[in-house]
Amino acid sequence: MSLEGLSINFATIKQGGSFGVMVDACLKQGITTISPWREHVQGVGLEEAARIVSENGIRLSGHCRGGFFPAIDEDGRRKAIDDNKRAVDEAAAMNANCLVLVVGGLPKGSKDIRGARQMVEDGMAELLPYAKAAGVPLAIEPLHPFYAADRACFNTLKQSLDLCDRLGEGTGVAIDVYHVWWDPEVEEQVARAGRNNQILAHHICDWLVPTTDPLNDRGMMGDGVIDLKGFRSMIEKAGFFGPQEVEIFSYNWNAKPIDEVLTTVVERYRTVC
Amino acid sequence: MSLEGLSINFATIKQGGSFGVMVDACLKQGITTISPWREHVQGVGLEEAARIVSENGIRLSGHCRGGFFPAIDEDGRRKAIDDNKRAVDEAAAMNANCLVLVVGGLPKGSKDIRGARQMVEDGMAELLPYAKAAGVPLAIEPLHPFYAADRACFNTLKQSLDLCDRLGEGTGVAIDVYHVWWDPEVEEQVARAGRNNQILAHHICDWLVPTTDPLNDRGMMGDGVIDLKGFRSMIEKAGFFGPQEVEIFSYNWNAKPIDEVLTTVVERYRTVC
Repeated sequence: MSLEGLSINFATIKQGGSFGVMVDACLKQGITTISPWREHVQGVGLEEAARIVSENGIRLSGHCRGGFFPAIDEDGRRKAIDDNKRAVDEAAAMNANCLVLVVGGLPKGSKDIRGARQMVEDGMAELLPYAKAAGVPLAIEPLHPFYAADRACFNTLKQSLDLCDRLGEGTGVAIDVYHVWWDPEVEEQVARAGRNNQILAHHICDWLVPTTDPLNDRGMMGDGVIDLKGFRSMIEKAGFFGPQEVEIFSYNWNAKPIDEVLTTVVERYRTVC
Repeated sequence: MSLEGLSINFATIKQGGSFGVMVDACLKQGITTISPWREHVQGVGLEEAARIVSENGIRLSGHCRGGFFPAIDEDGRRKAIDDNKRAVDEAAAMNANCLVLVVGGLPKGSKDIRGARQMVEDGMAELLPYAKAAGVPLAIEPLHPFYAADRACFNTLKQSLDLCDRLGEGTGVAIDVYHVWWDPEVEEQVARAGRNNQILAHHICDWLVPTTDPLNDRGMMGDGVIDLKGFRSMIEKAGFFGPQEVEIFSYNWNAKPIDEVLTTVVERYRTVC
């Protein structure tokens, strides 16, 4: 079974430390699609990262991440837009399939989630022409409602796709099973996203029972309760055949040698995804 | 300001230990509405609990809890129905305003959340005639999606109200701000529930940033990011003027003397709710 359909998000192997080490570990397994985080790229420098990507025939299923648009004042929102433009530049230089957006939650001290959502919409509307000119699609990643306050005030596919519809071309969603598996409307919304060509990425991991930590206890595929094959089938039925990107934030897995993590990922990808 | 609109869910003061101690602590503050858990009632015995309630003019905004309908086999589902009937009996004996249902998540080993939802619907349909005969409304409490796997596979108001519509009279929802505050459709669904007289309870606490524990780090009203006054206004606009029931699962608050907890609850109720 070819590993063309598999991508490694570098959060999964962040213990590798540097961009080069993580890329080499993927290549050693025969994995040629990745999704780095900005700090990994900036650690080695964008030019060098782009060279490594290009010379090794590596594809980027996404670049992580832009977003965090809400801020307590205009100055803060302005800085967020500027920073997002740099993220777009990075994504473009590495020819990433999309820039993944963790859109941001409530500004410090605020209880106005509707206001925060408006700031996200305004910020994306301002960023979009720049991203389109650079040829970088913007992928809203609806995060699990657990993160509504501090990371992303867009928490369902429906809500995110409604925003994509308002913003128009050049926007879409990153569908992470961890964030949306529980949603009673997930099937119809995945189908809707497919009809409108709004699926930009498909992230996988698993939901552990119990989940002991809200941030860093995501599971390896197969260790939890998500029907991953069923989910993939739903995604493909909607017309998306891009890679399954493994993104596992986990105290447990991030403490293991990255070769062990990747060997396990490949084995699970071949059996349960 | 009268405390008629305030109810204390006994999870908030469970360190009190016994039904009598918790009731006395509430009465001492002038609070005459409560929502006990089954173990508190069973600890003192249903007859004695009903006597304490009746002799002190206490009202129950709810009885916690029934539910947990899904099970791996027919025998397990049958036992769940029987146990729910005992919960209905208790609620009836204490004249509770409703039986709160934490409907249950995935049966052990299952990845079929749609199947679990069907088990909930089937279980409630079977329980309903018994509950109606006893005069006890069944209140589905949609739980935060964090609990979809292990506690409740109904996680939004819309999903829960759709089920109530299918089941008909004698069913409704318990709206807990902690579970639904993030929902982009919360306003329209609260209004819908009001139109159909489906609001049976209104629970309050707060969402802390950060929330360090997924189960036991709920906040005291005012310490988090939920717009409680705005939420109450939305609920009253929908036609529900029943008590605000304080339900705080918290390592922090459950470690304090219950008089201190209740004094704080009263102060916050008067200022931020």
